[in-house]
This record gives sequence, C-alpha cells and structure tokens, in this order.
Amino acid sequence: MKLDLTRPIFDAHNAVAAENRGLLDKAGVFALNLMSSPGAGKTCLILATVDRLPPSISSGVIEGDPAARIDADIIAARGIPVTQINTGGGCHLHAPMIRAALDHLPLTDIDLLFVENVGNLICTANFVLGTHKQIVLASVPEGHDKPYKYPGMFAAADAVVLAKADVLRSFDFDLAYFRHGLDIVNPNIPLFAVSSRTGEGLDTWMAWLLQHILKPHLVLAAT
Amino acid sequence: MKLDLTRPIFDAHNAVAAENRGLLDKAGVFALNLMSSPGAGKTCLILATVDRLPPSISSGVIEGDPAARIDADIIAARGIPVTQINTGGGCHLHAPMIRAALDHLPLTDIDLLFVENVGNLICTANFVLGTHKQIVLASVPEGHDKPYKYPGMFAAADAVVLAKADVLRSFDFDLAYFRHGLDIVNPNIPLFAVSSRTGEGLDTWMAWLLQHILKPHLVLAAT
Repeated sequence: MKLDLTRPIFDAHNAVAAENRGLLDKAGVFALNLMSSPGAGKTCLILATVDRLPPSISSGVIEGDPAARIDADIIAARGIPVTQINTGGGCHLHAPMIRAALDHLPLTDIDLLFVENVGNLICTANFVLGTHKQIVLASVPEGHDKPYKYPGMFAAADAVVLAKADVLRSFDFDLAYFRHGLDIVNPNIPLFAVSSRTGEGLDTWMAWLLQHILKPHLVLAAT
Repeated sequence: MKLDLTRPIFDAHNAVAAENRGLLDKAGVFALNLMSSPGAGKTCLILATVDRLPPSISSGVIEGDPAARIDADIIAARGIPVTQINTGGGCHLHAPMIRAALDHLPLTDIDLLFVENVGNLICTANFVLGTHKQIVLASVPEGHDKPYKYPGMFAAADAVVLAKADVLRSFDFDLAYFRHGLDIVNPNIPLFAVSSRTGEGLDTWMAWLLQHILKPHLVLAAT
C-alpha cells in the first residue's frame, strides 16, 4: 500500500472549491481564474475588460500575490470592489483562500468576479478554486514556446489570452508555432491575441466572455 | 511537538547540494543557478555570455524545464555540452536532479556551468543546488514591481540581471522603482540591466562574472 500524503489535502480543497461554486452561483456571480507567469498582464487585462463591459454587468476582483497589494490598490482606485490575498510566499491560490476572500466582497452586487492568481505558470494549474472558467494568459515577450515547455498549465485552461500582442512583430513571435503547441496539449482551445495597451483583439475576447457570463444569468432568470 | 514533514526532505537535499558543490570544486567548475519567470531570457543570456567569454574558459549547461528540450537543442547546436532535465511538471530543480545531471557532463572540460532552472519566480528560490552563485533574471516586459511582489526570490539572489533592457522605454519601466524594491529585500545587490539582443550592459555583467569565475581557479592554481 502506498500512502499519498497529498490526497487528503486535495480532497479537502475540492470540497471547499465546490462550496465556493455554490456561493458564487447562489449570488449570480460568474468567476474567472486568471493564471499566468509573473507580469504577463493579468491586471491590465482585468481593467481593459471592465472598461468594455456593458453597464449592466458589475465586477469584483480577488488579487493573489506572494506579497504587497500593488494591484489591489490599482483596482480599488478604479472603484472596483477588491480583496487582496497575500500568500506569504506561497506559489498559488487555493480554494480555502478564496472561501475567506468571498466573505469580504459584496457578492450580490457583483456579476463578474476576476480571481487574479499568483504569477506562476506551473503550480496554479493544480488547484481548483470553484471558478467557472480557467483563463491562462501568455504574453508575447515570454516567447512562443511556452505551451511546449509548460503543457500542464495550458491543458488546464478553458481559454488562452495572448497578451501584449502589440509587440508581436518586434519580438519575432511565431503565432502559428504557439497555436500548434496549444493544439498538442489542448486541441481547439479558444485563443485571443490581445493588447490591453492598444485595445487590439479585445472585441473578440469580450464577445467570448460575455457569451459565458450571460448564460448563467439567463438560466437564473428562468428559474 | 510539531511534526515538520518537509524538514527531512530539505535536510536530504542540502546534503546532496553539498555533494554537488564538492564535485564541482574538485573539477574546477564554477556554477551559476539561473532563476526567473518563464521566458525572461535565461537561454539568451547564457548564449550571449558564452559568446563573450575568453577562449580559455569553456562552458556547460544543465537545462531545466517541466517538458520538452527546446533550449537544450539550441545550446547543443552551438557545440556546448548540455544535459536536459525534464521535471515532468515539477516547479523547480532540486539537488538530486543536479547530482544525476553532473554524471552526464564532461566536468573536467568545463570551467563555467550554467544551471538554467525551471521558469518560476517563487518555488526555485527554496532549493539549494550546490551552485556557487544564484542569479535572478527579471525582464523589462514583466514590469518594475516584481521585487515588491516576489520578495523571496530576490532575497535569495547574489546578483540580479534585468533582461530585455532594450525595451526599457517602450514598456515604461521605472528602473529607480525596481532598484528601490531590490534594496528593500536585498540591499546593495548587484544589478545588471542588459539586452542579449543588442548587447547593451553585457560588458558590466561579464566583468562581474569573470571576477567570480577566475577567483576559485586562482585558488586552485595555488594549491
């Protein structure tokens, strides 16, 4: 018999993730788990997305970082409800952290909740949080080989956003090679090449997102 | 009494790290542990550094990635001895992996060994490998706030290389703010802003590195 010491931890996390999902669904909140390398542009994508939401959809943010509350302050300055989680050096968010953070957000006033995970292209993929969709950001300056080197992260994603697309050419980024790498680990996964700075590509991302946000609301309205 | 299950693992790793250091020193090899986020430019820095080494100093590389051997192939194509470690999704290299890799390198022919760690700005900092110096790469597109958000990594470094310095201005990177963040967690740590693409800043980095590589060799020559 092999004793797996991590199994009880994962089981406990999965139970809390299910509890989180229940709380979110009850309040009519659609939640995204944003995962990427450090500095890929998660906060900028959140702000660019919020700017393009219809007025009827309000947002909230859970910020995850090993330390500091730099991004939370940026979000709060825009008048968006936000809770900061500092992992104290921990390499990922986990469901119990989200459970605690949800108590500090006005859930009934939020339609779309962004969970900005710790910047880490490996560990974050292994922990379910209870969010509805897992979004992985890659950024152009990181290079086009990331799906080949970090397949676990891209396999865990529901959609991939390629950020900083305005510098695609100056960084010699081979989009076809990147797409091919995605297809190996996660065939036909939606890919959105965007620039939060110039706005390019954001319309397609918003269309995909709105289609998913609005669906559970329509279901709720019918019950 | 509190049972710390991680303690025996760290103790075992530290013993292997000491063994690695002994093997390296015996063979006259100076080893660098290169740590960064994914895609910060570790492989490009290795190649740019090798290009600028005096002919008397020969190099070797240990490549660490969750999957694939893309960088190892690039290194091998340049005629540099290289061993690939695939962690199978693991988020860092550890000393036993290095111990195994050392058996696959011609250590007596190598003066400078680059250990390119897995791209991860958190977990890699916690594992000593037996290398002589720990180098953290930050890259300009990741943003100037990384020392504030990921202090553990920068605290563990002996020197910081700020890569992709050719795009400092177009990414609105505040170098003074970055330097201030470093000084909070690791006062006066050497910082080299470089571009492997344009070559800027590499002379200063090479001078620092050569001073450290040559020192143990002089000691060895005197014994």
